[in-house]
Amino acid sequence: MPRIAAFGEVMMRLQVPGHGTLVQSNTLDYSFSGSGVNVTAALAGYGHNGALITTLPETPVGEAAIAYLRKLGVDTSLICRGGKQLGMYFLENGFGARPGRVTYTDRLGSSFNTAEAGNYDMVALASRIDVLHLCGITLAMNEGVRKQMKRLAAEVKSAGGKVVFDCNYRPALWGADGYAKARPHYEQLLELTDLVLMNEKDAQFILGFGTGEYDRMTQLKQAIPEVVERFEIGTAAGTHREINADHTHSLTGYIYQHGTFLFSRKLTFPVYDRIGAGDAFASAVIHGELQQYPQQQTVNMAAAAAMLAHTTQGDTALFTESEVLRALSDHTLDVER
Amino acid sequence: MPRIAAFGEVMMRLQVPGHGTLVQSNTLDYSFSGSGVNVTAALAGYGHNGALITTLPETPVGEAAIAYLRKLGVDTSLICRGGKQLGMYFLENGFGARPGRVTYTDRLGSSFNTAEAGNYDMVALASRIDVLHLCGITLAMNEGVRKQMKRLAAEVKSAGGKVVFDCNYRPALWGADGYAKARPHYEQLLELTDLVLMNEKDAQFILGFGTGEYDRMTQLKQAIPEVVERFEIGTAAGTHREINADHTHSLTGYIYQHGTFLFSRKLTFPVYDRIGAGDAFASAVIHGELQQYPQQQTVNMAAAAAMLAHTTQGDTALFTESEVLRALSDHTLDVER
Amino acid sequence: MPRIAAFGEVMMRLQVPGHGTLVQSNTLDYSFSGSGVNVTAALAGYGHNGALITTLPETPVGEAAIAYLRKLGVDTSLICRGGKQLGMYFLENGFGARPGRVTYTDRLGSSFNTAEAGNYDMVALASRIDVLHLCGITLAMNEGVRKQMKRLAAEVKSAGGKVVFDCNYRPALWGADGYAKARPHYEQLLELTDLVLMNEKDAQFILGFGTGEYDRMTQLKQAIPEVVERFEIGTAAGTHREINADHTHSLTGYIYQHGTFLFSRKLTFPVYDRIGAGDAFASAVIHGELQQYPQQQTVNMAAAAAMLAHTTQGDTALFTESEVLRALSDHTLDVER
Amino acid sequence: MPRIAAFGEVMMRLQVPGHGTLVQSNTLDYSFSGSGVNVTAALAGYGHNGALITTLPETPVGEAAIAYLRKLGVDTSLICRGGKQLGMYFLENGFGARPGRVTYTDRLGSSFNTAEAGNYDMVALASRIDVLHLCGITLAMNEGVRKQMKRLAAEVKSAGGKVVFDCNYRPALWGADGYAKARPHYEQLLELTDLVLMNEKDAQFILGFGTGEYDRMTQLKQAIPEVVERFEIGTAAGTHREINADHTHSLTGYIYQHGTFLFSRKLTFPVYDRIGAGDAFASAVIHGELQQYPQQQTVNMAAAAAMLAHTTQGDTALFTESEVLRALSDHTLDVER
Amino acid sequence: MPRIAAFGEVMMRLQVPGHGTLVQSNTLDYSFSGSGVNVTAALAGYGHNGALITTLPETPVGEAAIAYLRKLGVDTSLICRGGKQLGMYFLENGFGARPGRVTYTDRLGSSFNTAEAGNYDMVALASRIDVLHLCGITLAMNEGVRKQMKRLAAEVKSAGGKVVFDCNYRPALWGADGYAKARPHYEQLLELTDLVLMNEKDAQFILGFGTGEYDRMTQLKQAIPEVVERFEIGTAAGTHREINADHTHSLTGYIYQHGTFLFSRKLTFPVYDRIGAGDAFASAVIHGELQQYPQQQTVNMAAAAAMLAHTTQGDTALFTESEVLRALSDHTLDVER
Amino acid sequence: MPRIAAFGEVMMRLQVPGHGTLVQSNTLDYSFSGSGVNVTAALAGYGHNGALITTLPETPVGEAAIAYLRKLGVDTSLICRGGKQLGMYFLENGFGARPGRVTYTDRLGSSFNTAEAGNYDMVALASRIDVLHLCGITLAMNEGVRKQMKRLAAEVKSAGGKVVFDCNYRPALWGADGYAKARPHYEQLLELTDLVLMNEKDAQFILGFGTGEYDRMTQLKQAIPEVVERFEIGTAAGTHREINADHTHSLTGYIYQHGTFLFSRKLTFPVYDRIGAGDAFASAVIHGELQQYPQQQTVNMAAAAAMLAHTTQGDTALFTESEVLRALSDHTLDVER
Repeated sequence: MPRIAAFGEVMMRLQVPGHGTLVQSNTLDYSFSGSGVNVTAALAGYGHNGALITTLPETPVGEAAIAYLRKLGVDTSLICRGGKQLGMYFLENGFGARPGRVTYTDRLGSSFNTAEAGNYDMVALASRIDVLHLCGITLAMNEGVRKQMKRLAAEVKSAGGKVVFDCNYRPALWGADGYAKARPHYEQLLELTDLVLMNEKDAQFILGFGTGEYDRMTQLKQAIPEVVERFEIGTAAGTHREINADHTHSLTGYIYQHGTFLFSRKLTFPVYDRIGAGDAFASAVIHGELQQYPQQQTVNMAAAAAMLAHTTQGDTALFTESEVLRALSDHTLDVER
Repeated sequence: MPRIAAFGEVMMRLQVPGHGTLVQSNTLDYSFSGSGVNVTAALAGYGHNGALITTLPETPVGEAAIAYLRKLGVDTSLICRGGKQLGMYFLENGFGARPGRVTYTDRLGSSFNTAEAGNYDMVALASRIDVLHLCGITLAMNEGVRKQMKRLAAEVKSAGGKVVFDCNYRPALWGADGYAKARPHYEQLLELTDLVLMNEKDAQFILGFGTGEYDRMTQLKQAIPEVVERFEIGTAAGTHREINADHTHSLTGYIYQHGTFLFSRKLTFPVYDRIGAGDAFASAVIHGELQQYPQQQTVNMAAAAAMLAHTTQGDTALFTESEVLRALSDHTLDVER
Repeated sequence: MPRIAAFGEVMMRLQVPGHGTLVQSNTLDYSFSGSGVNVTAALAGYGHNGALITTLPETPVGEAAIAYLRKLGVDTSLICRGGKQLGMYFLENGFGARPGRVTYTDRLGSSFNTAEAGNYDMVALASRIDVLHLCGITLAMNEGVRKQMKRLAAEVKSAGGKVVFDCNYRPALWGADGYAKARPHYEQLLELTDLVLMNEKDAQFILGFGTGEYDRMTQLKQAIPEVVERFEIGTAAGTHREINADHTHSLTGYIYQHGTFLFSRKLTFPVYDRIGAGDAFASAVIHGELQQYPQQQTVNMAAAAAMLAHTTQGDTALFTESEVLRALSDHTLDVER
Repeated sequence: MPRIAAFGEVMMRLQVPGHGTLVQSNTLDYSFSGSGVNVTAALAGYGHNGALITTLPETPVGEAAIAYLRKLGVDTSLICRGGKQLGMYFLENGFGARPGRVTYTDRLGSSFNTAEAGNYDMVALASRIDVLHLCGITLAMNEGVRKQMKRLAAEVKSAGGKVVFDCNYRPALWGADGYAKARPHYEQLLELTDLVLMNEKDAQFILGFGTGEYDRMTQLKQAIPEVVERFEIGTAAGTHREINADHTHSLTGYIYQHGTFLFSRKLTFPVYDRIGAGDAFASAVIHGELQQYPQQQTVNMAAAAAMLAHTTQGDTALFTESEVLRALSDHTLDVER
Repeated sequence: MPRIAAFGEVMMRLQVPGHGTLVQSNTLDYSFSGSGVNVTAALAGYGHNGALITTLPETPVGEAAIAYLRKLGVDTSLICRGGKQLGMYFLENGFGARPGRVTYTDRLGSSFNTAEAGNYDMVALASRIDVLHLCGITLAMNEGVRKQMKRLAAEVKSAGGKVVFDCNYRPALWGADGYAKARPHYEQLLELTDLVLMNEKDAQFILGFGTGEYDRMTQLKQAIPEVVERFEIGTAAGTHREINADHTHSLTGYIYQHGTFLFSRKLTFPVYDRIGAGDAFASAVIHGELQQYPQQQTVNMAAAAAMLAHTTQGDTALFTESEVLRALSDHTLDVER
Repeated sequence: MPRIAAFGEVMMRLQVPGHGTLVQSNTLDYSFSGSGVNVTAALAGYGHNGALITTLPETPVGEAAIAYLRKLGVDTSLICRGGKQLGMYFLENGFGARPGRVTYTDRLGSSFNTAEAGNYDMVALASRIDVLHLCGITLAMNEGVRKQMKRLAAEVKSAGGKVVFDCNYRPALWGADGYAKARPHYEQLLELTDLVLMNEKDAQFILGFGTGEYDRMTQLKQAIPEVVERFEIGTAAGTHREINADHTHSLTGYIYQHGTFLFSRKLTFPVYDRIGAGDAFASAVIHGELQQYPQQQTVNMAAAAAMLAHTTQGDTALFTESEVLRALSDHTLDVER
């Protein structure tokens, strides 16, 4: 069985229950997540071994994070301990016309983001990894983390492993002139990437594959092949999201390989918890590729997994393959009893 | 005032609050329900005396069940005590494309399902009952319970009472070849039945009143009169449910008597708690028949009661007749203040 | 900065959490609200100083009310202490076809409604108020409160301040022949009013500006100018609400000044908490008028504020101007992160 | 089996959970209680039929109260409906040196306290009662309730029933010169009483049986026989409470009949919920007298029942006789499994 | 590092929060525990690898149990899946004079207790186990489980491993004539045991090592050496518990090896959660023996671990060795900050 | 009325409810506190005006903090906005032998600790302050904050105000060689101090007023007069705490002025929430001094206030003077009703 690992930060999510605000409430629900957590947990749900590579503090909060990851099914044996704290974010749910709000604490002081250069034994790690998942959010943190990320990707490639990279560009993390700052780092990672999660916006704004087209689909079909060719990437995949007037969302997944685009059917659904849906899509694409499913099946499953992630409490969606397949075939089911 | 009793099991419902799963949560909301509970409580809400005939253990859990039934307004004076435990089920709410899940513990070891033959004084009970409600779920349990059920129905008939039977076929309870196993028992009970709750699926699959038709409504109009005639049943009633793409449900009620079908308007509504809606429909039909309301009013009220049951926390819907009538006339009301 | 004050009762809101009923639940969420509370808190959220004039008991409940008002940003320095208790209401949320229910305790015994004639130093208060907000609910209480209300309005006018009056006619509070009882009091207050919140129903039923028209919009355009002219009111504003078959609501705001009607776009939205939306509309109109915004902007913002109030837990909606403006421009936003 | 009824008010108890205050919290736990509720529920727990005579409003709050009483096992068939509201009290738990606080709403406006003279059919009620329980708290309400109370006691006596009266003098309810105001009413009721719950303080301060003694026990032994003789009461019973430096309480029960005092052993115990302990004592005395237990056993059981009531969440203690007996024999038990 | 495994049932614990009863509450906190769970989790907390050998159903409840065990740090890779349900117990907390109550569902139908003879590959399991933990509760279940338990113990011994057996006799599980029924099974297991957890009661009542002595300590010192000699057991350990009048508990641990008794100091402490304390003692004894600590240190640590387990929410106590050592040296510490 | 201000950080307190740990729970109760918050809120409770000088981020978390401070009665008009986040700490309650645990996030990145030199207009602030409260915790933060603190103290003194300084030395914040690092900063502040909160440990370890004595009381009586003389401080006050074997705490307060020590009686009490008790003591001393109460009364009240703070949920104790006086006279009170 292929050994999958993700390199990334564990965040503590502190959510106001129900639909109140931080001003109104006096309790918070907490959990631990992050792109790497979501992907390794989802892959564990599909029956793979998914390990997280990160650094957590030796405090009761760090203990709670590790226990939570174990509960999710994540292999925690590659986790380093050190530093002082976790990154955190507060989440206030929106309702209808009122958008949800996310407030981050300063992540740069976290154990993950302050870990020193020699914190990880990159060669030893690489020897234990067949597939490595990386995320553009990590790339936005600081130079130390970026170096670790690139080094690990390079070591995994040297050792014969594969690299998955989810572009996941977050404007707030890169600040002013963010695209210009981000481009060289994205380019370096894409050189090492076998499977990329991105869409035409990433291609245009980060990488500068400008298209003169207006329509998103036309842009996608023009830009993605250029990116894939330029960086010699095996496969690209991603989604188009629409937010409808009735507050439902619609999602269409694509996968591109060997010059061919395949699309999922457009799925429309109500949203319970928006966060983590992109990771659910990515996880299902990785699963499909590892299982060598037909790519039409992979993109369909990935879109359905992303839809299910919107219906799930918390960032981390845990579904079996059969649950995803059933959601794909019919998503207006009665209670199961 | 007619004395109504139901014979059936009390289940403990253990529900994950909100939209989490058993893996994610650490608390459960509990209540006590069951087809007989729901029907006698609903009839108590309409002003009747509704007593439950069942067996509950002499444990703190049994005490809690009895206190809960008293709170619902159910007459608990006919309940026997004995055995070791209650049947239980766990409920995880779904959301949108993610269906809810029900997990039963093994009901067959419950006080109700292990009660011995002489547990109930059938003659004495029958003398105190004008209308007896029975349910196909009970019929699926085991031979001991089936015998008690048929015996009680027979005694009530002998004593001049009426029998209501809700077919309520649950495939999971009957297992492989379920329809074949179930048919003789259903037939024996229908021989004793004055008012049956069923639809064309029951007629076709359990009783074998096959129709060559494709359309559900055509099937219904063909099969129900045949069943009613064959078993000399006074009245049949039931519903057609549709689950719409936006996760609303639609319900149409029917009632059939003296060769005539009457239908409610099709009601479409969002769903808060799916469980117990069939019992709400049955209760309102019984109420309408006991009050000798015009049957069009009865079927309208029953459909509205079923709709309201979908908006109510818990299996057991408690509404007054005036609340049902108002929901019937207008179900987009502003807050009442 | 203009000094805004509202004269009105503080109510304790006792809400069954989730979608259960008082019979089903055993906990209540509580908060403190009232038309005056909602308006002064909303204006504090827009950056004004908003003070409440009321009377609260010297009990732990009274302390809790004051602390809660302080949390909302309301200036509590004008509040008198005395009497025995607060008015209270119980709120059971509805769902879909099941309407929410509000049950009041007898408000007439509250500290506010039993305060004696000399309880407030009206002249001193008036000297500290530039804009006074009054509400038709207060007018419905008893003769003592009505006298205080009229006296305060008169003193504020004498001292050069402005009076805002929200008609807010509640049939349940006025009882049989309510319109006839209410009319003289409404007329006396309207004589003192600079800005009135009302619509054509108020004009017709309370004030008798009968129109022979069938259409609400035609009625509005006929009756409001007549009211404004008769009572020499500077500005009138209000809303038309529709409740749609899918349980969303639609709202259209209007403002009328100098012979001209301006209307907001009709906003359609799902509803989380219905109560307090009218106060959110009124607050935004007051804010717009104080800021001397173009009236089209004011009515747009007021409609958007009312929409946001429907998405907010509790009676009292706290939004900044920028949040209202964003909701106006786009109310199908993704989570903010 | 003797038919027991209590005449008294149902209060809604609104308790801040845990150890916070009304200022700090935003939720309340609610239940329904009152002296009559506590006594009839406790007697139901001992296997008697206990009915409450009271008046409750026809509102969702009134429905919730009735459902709650049914859950407690109270016979609700003698309850009248009418009026507007329930009496309520807020409870903030203390801890150690910080005393708990109770804040009442104005009870005089409750359905019970505003019920008109003809509200109850006293003769019909009396014919259905063997033992009537009355409480000094009810006597403190208003003249209307006092008249109903005395009338019902007189009718029960005429019909051959027994009257139990718990003096339960609450200074806050009688106000200034309370003892003088209360005396004639207490005297009239004691004329009709068969079993009185009181101690030497009641005898001295309400009834004026002044003793020159300093020691409580000496006072008790002097005053109680005088009261019993003067009013020709069959039995008197009551408790002495001490609050110890470590916040445990100690309780000693007494019973007096035919010139003889019997005392329970002094029980010392930690306190979970102080309210309702006196009613638990009274209920066990009534039970012991009805069962004609030896009076030493009765007073022992009553003290143990009062002790258990201090360990029970809520005003109303529900124990079986065997649970009380076990607590009497050993109150440092391990978990039962 | 030695590989430790426990063979035993996973129970679902359903606890009424706070101090209410099943009648009063409507929510339950749930967790998963059992003697084997508690021991392997505690040993994981001390840094060992602890695996559970059991059978869990393939249902959402079974998934939740496995996720919970992973969170506790238990190695779940040896768990079989099958059967229908988990054993469950309801827990109502006591307070002071009111004892807590435990209500079991019928455990005999659980996946563990209905697993067939060939369910476990005993030889393969034994090859992966250095130390096997068994418990007298499992021995009480049924003949099938007893056979599996004895077979596994025998295989582990054959493979060179050690067997730990905790007598843990529960009268309620063995029923009438329980000691006589249990004796042969206990004897067979003790023949295979290297480390036994027991005290003089087990020796006397189960094994018949009757002593004519009255004093518990004298009994212990007489009976334990006889048991150890008879069954050729390396080490025996156990506790004496006293429940004090102020509801604190006192615990003294002993360990016996090579003819010598060593005792811990008697620890006295308040109790938060009584359940699982014996497993905490056993785990620390196992840990001390594996680490080859001086036996005085081992028994001291074990007593302190048991004390800490009484202060911990839930059956399963998770402490590091340093936390146990600190509690041993001083158990009246201030908050750590 | 004197204007009191405190300069200090606002911390977000995130507390695991009940007695679970961060590993076990999934919810947190949150509130906002800090030495300055506790003191200004307590003084507001005594009827003074208490303003906090701090810096809070312009985020939903910052808004929540300000709203919470308003609720506590703190004057928030002097608060600056800026920076990115709040300091936070996690609190796990202990029980008996298990100590509570506090885990801080890295406070140095908070808005308060990163505010730049010119953030506060020191001269303007000083002109609005009669009494300034400072705390040794703030002194431990970083050089920037220390400079602001000293500058503000100097400006307040220049403007004729008084300075209160609570030594509050926290070893964990100063790290290795902490006393040596801290001494010069403590000395500089004590030069500006009018009222100091300290005890003999502070005098010995921070300031080096070593005494050769063994007994704490003798040390206190020797060292405090030397400190007061050396730094020309008007008044010193502080407490001695003992933690007893039964987990109660004992507290004795002292006050020293004009060469005379006065002591409160030693108070012994159970502890609900340990944090914030020192601030409650300090607040009551400040209140007593401002009211010019006899110093024996002041120290008695301060000890009682500290005792009450241990019984109060949260860091911040809010009591009126009459509540403190009552606790002083009798702290084994019955419930108030």
